[in-house]
Amino acid sequence: MFDIMIKNANLATPQGNMPKSGKAQGEILIQNNVDIGILDGKIAKIAPRGELGTPAQEVINARGRLVTPGLVDSHTHLVFGGFRQNELQMKLAGAQYLEILAAGGGILSTVKATRAASFDELCDKAEGFLNDMIDHGTTTTEVKSGYGLDFETELKQLEVVRKLNIHHDMDLVATFMGAHAVPTKFAGNADGYVNLLINEIIPKMADEGLAEFCDIFCEDSVFNVEQSRRILQAAKKHGFKLKIHADEIVDLGGAKLAAELGATSAEHLIAASDEGLQALAQSDTIAILLPATSFYLGKPYARARDMVNLGIPVAIASDFNPGSSPSFNMQLALTLAYIGYRLHPCEALTAATLNGACAIGLGETKGTIEVGKDADIVVWDCPDLDYLFYRFGNNQVYTVIKNGGVTYEID
Amino acid sequence: MFDIMIKNANLATPQGNMPKSGKAQGEILIQNNVDIGILDGKIAKIAPRGELGTPAQEVINARGRLVTPGLVDSHTHLVFGGFRQNELQMKLAGAQYLEILAAGGGILSTVKATRAASFDELCDKAEGFLNDMIDHGTTTTEVKSGYGLDFETELKQLEVVRKLNIHHDMDLVATFMGAHAVPTKFAGNADGYVNLLINEIIPKMADEGLAEFCDIFCEDSVFNVEQSRRILQAAKKHGFKLKIHADEIVDLGGAKLAAELGATSAEHLIAASDEGLQALAQSDTIAILLPATSFYLGKPYARARDMVNLGIPVAIASDFNPGSSPSFNMQLALTLAYIGYRLHPCEALTAATLNGACAIGLGETKGTIEVGKDADIVVWDCPDLDYLFYRFGNNQVYTVIKNGGVTYEID
Repeated sequence: MFDIMIKNANLATPQGNMPKSGKAQGEILIQNNVDIGILDGKIAKIAPRGELGTPAQEVINARGRLVTPGLVDSHTHLVFGGFRQNELQMKLAGAQYLEILAAGGGILSTVKATRAASFDELCDKAEGFLNDMIDHGTTTTEVKSGYGLDFETELKQLEVVRKLNIHHDMDLVATFMGAHAVPTKFAGNADGYVNLLINEIIPKMADEGLAEFCDIFCEDSVFNVEQSRRILQAAKKHGFKLKIHADEIVDLGGAKLAAELGATSAEHLIAASDEGLQALAQSDTIAILLPATSFYLGKPYARARDMVNLGIPVAIASDFNPGSSPSFNMQLALTLAYIGYRLHPCEALTAATLNGACAIGLGETKGTIEVGKDADIVVWDCPDLDYLFYRFGNNQVYTVIKNGGVTYEID
Repeated sequence: MFDIMIKNANLATPQGNMPKSGKAQGEILIQNNVDIGILDGKIAKIAPRGELGTPAQEVINARGRLVTPGLVDSHTHLVFGGFRQNELQMKLAGAQYLEILAAGGGILSTVKATRAASFDELCDKAEGFLNDMIDHGTTTTEVKSGYGLDFETELKQLEVVRKLNIHHDMDLVATFMGAHAVPTKFAGNADGYVNLLINEIIPKMADEGLAEFCDIFCEDSVFNVEQSRRILQAAKKHGFKLKIHADEIVDLGGAKLAAELGATSAEHLIAASDEGLQALAQSDTIAILLPATSFYLGKPYARARDMVNLGIPVAIASDFNPGSSPSFNMQLALTLAYIGYRLHPCEALTAATLNGACAIGLGETKGTIEVGKDADIVVWDCPDLDYLFYRFGNNQVYTVIKNGGVTYEID
């Protein structure tokens, strides 16, 4: 007896546990008229319609709807205080990033609000986002700290992630990102903050054991390549796996550094050079691209098409944060991957499921619909995959199956 | 006794019955802590919090949420058969518009599907869209025919609009657009179709009395300026008010023609020349801009900023249709008006409410929250107007009030 059976699904899923690149990124399994049996939160059997051979306690009749793995959002800054809609007016008036920062806006205003917020406030707010994210088809998400820039607040953010990972249906993977910006206290003395991170904060954070990854904003006027290398080497020594915000605005060499250090992922990459992409292509590093950020800031789109052609495994994520991407909607990220990156829907689906899962260390259990994997499944109110990308602008989720239960059902 | 009272609203609304242009387009009323009394489907009183002086049968506590007029979508092709997600693959493979058309795709495939669909099929499908549109904050919409290209099917489309206008909460305004494309039967003989429209279809359609406006696709390879002038003059003679799909792809002079004929609106205008914009600025014609079409097709955005600066009243609409804009989401159109047009949220709100209402002849009753106007109101799950534009990607409607009742309420 299965717990749940999804009947008459039009299945579209990548396959396997490893990141897909090049031509393989677009080679997904598409199979109509399929039944899926779920037991104990795992996918137990997949068979042609009517051939599951075992009854189920609950039957979801997909009636020929598209069924995909739950979406994996591999890059978010989910836990933050405040919002920054006021910057919209400044931007319309022509203010640049540094002017907004000088006016008390930008990331440092979020740091201030996040420091001021209590654990419970941050937790309630992030929980609200998670509810909405799961309603929109995201079943696993990475979350970075980085709005504390001091041990105490960074720890508070990561403790929120731990609590939500236990109590919420969403699966969360935590990344420590104390090197998200240079805190006001260290203005003009980035090296001082780098030393503090290396000598105190990273070792203490490793002891806490709350984050699997360490990330850094390697960027002009933030942390240069040498500082980034030092921090990430220290993090690696303390057992963190590595991520880099690389070459987002300026081609500083972040992509090369990611390849050099064997980082799990290099993220953003809008300005990455040919040399940087070549380095990634020869490494095991996954490129995590963030189309909603390009969209919202009116920036160029990363060269996703080139990356796929070069054989770099590409993931896409929301970059959900209160400054540069105030949207968690992975459906919009998929449509943008088509519009902005010219990725094929099959390539983009792999980017938002299996490759995203691999980019946060979960390729073994997430990202595909195959026997033995976690039953994180979305039934879409769509007949086929192309339609999901085509009918942009409203939530196309029909039902989300997560942790052995139905967590969301359309009216 | 009011029927409904909206309590503690943060009101943002344009004012008056006439289209707003230039600086006035951005001069909206913003007033916090307001109560609104509704009686018999009309706005009966607006007062500071607690000062309405009359009780209400139903109280909606907005709790400081943003309250705006219901959105007016002044340009849609709502009634159509089929979908065209299959074109996405052709486009990724590099196919141009004319190749897709030659492969049986494009507008003529929608014409085929719309001719084949029964009245009830078209009605049920459009009704589903209207439900979703109202859930997303649109309370009035224009609908164009134009997927028949013969009298019978054009009439069928307009009869669907009439039926839905009577039976659905949404208010609909109908536009006859028999000159949406040259039908296959008249391939290479556009003049033959123009003559048929002028001599037979327009007079018969005028007798039916189902459409208030007549629109035409004035474009390279569709209808040239002279054909457009002839058709619109005939339509005017038969009592239609005029709209023009003008200068969308090529600057053919459609904007000038709209001004010359005193059209209510010129729509698209992506390629309009300085001369065309000057002509509009000296006319009473409203520019209806369609940012989701630019977004979805990866085309340039119309010069909305220039138009506002020149004193042309600008409206924005969804262009909802199965080819170039498969989204009805006016919230996304608002965000795109900020991102793509660099309009101020106040200007964009006027564009999506009062100016839209004026562009479909409803400035007297729709488009603002003022005493005497129809109570078409959206309570947003937002603290202020900027936030509505900033938190893109998910539906921010909290409650929609329409026709004296609450038609949609968030869970």
